[in-house]
Amino acid sequence: MEKVNIGQKLSLFSEHWNPKIVGELNGQQVKLVKLKGEFVWHKHDEEDELFYVISGVLKMEYRDKIVVINENEFLIVPRGVEHKPVADEEVAVMLFEPTTTLNTGNTYNDLTKHTLEKI
Amino acid sequence: MEKVNIGQKLSLFSEHWNPKIVGELNGQQVKLVKLKGEFVWHKHDEEDELFYVISGVLKMEYRDKIVVINENEFLIVPRGVEHKPVADEEVAVMLFEPTTTLNTGNTYNDLTKHTLEKI
Repeated sequence: MEKVNIGQKLSLFSEHWNPKIVGELNGQQVKLVKLKGEFVWHKHDEEDELFYVISGVLKMEYRDKIVVINENEFLIVPRGVEHKPVADEEVAVMLFEPTTTLNTGNTYNDLTKHTLEKI
Repeated sequence: MEKVNIGQKLSLFSEHWNPKIVGELNGQQVKLVKLKGEFVWHKHDEEDELFYVISGVLKMEYRDKIVVINENEFLIVPRGVEHKPVADEEVAVMLFEPTTTLNTGNTYNDLTKHTLEKI
C-alpha cells in the first residue's frame, strides 16, 4: 500500500548481478538490479522475463541476434529462449518475473543467487 | 522477442482511461494508459494491480488515505482494496496486472472497457 521510488531503492545498493526484490503481486516479483559486464548464457524453462531499462543501455544477446534496449524500453524474453545480458557500462534494470525465477535459469555458477534480499 | 519503447507506444494514442496492451508474460499483461480527471471507486477481488508512473503525478485515493505517485515511482494496490485513481493533469501510467483484470473492477459503467487494444 506504500509507493516505491525507483531512484531511492537504487541508491541502497551498488553490487552488480544481485537482484533486489522491491515488490510482489500475483505470484510475480518486481526486482531492481544493476548490471555491468557479461552475464552467462541461460534460459528459464517455466518463466517469461521482463527487462525494463531504468538507466543505461542493455544488450540482450540471443543465439541469433542482439537486441539493444535503451532507457524507458523493455524486452520480454519468453520462457525456453536462451539469452545473455551484456552491459558495457552500468545499467539499472527493473525485472518483472515469477517468484520462482532463478537469476541464472537452468545453469548454476558463481553468479547464481538462491536467495534475494528485499529492500 | 522485440523490445518495446514506452514513448513510441504512448505517441500512438491520446484518449484517457483506455488501457492499451503492450506486453504479455506469465498470465500477466503490461498496459499503458493515459489518465486525466477522476476515475471511479472500485476494487479487484482477484487481482493485485501495479501502477508505475511514466510521466505526471497520480493520486491514488484509498478510503482512509491518499498516496501521491510521482514519475519513476510505483504503487501496488492489493486485491480487495477499494481505490480511485485521480489525475489533476494528464498522467501516463504503465500497469502490470493479470490478463483477467477489468479496468473498473467490481463496477460497471461508461468507463468499463471489456476489450483492450494491443498496440
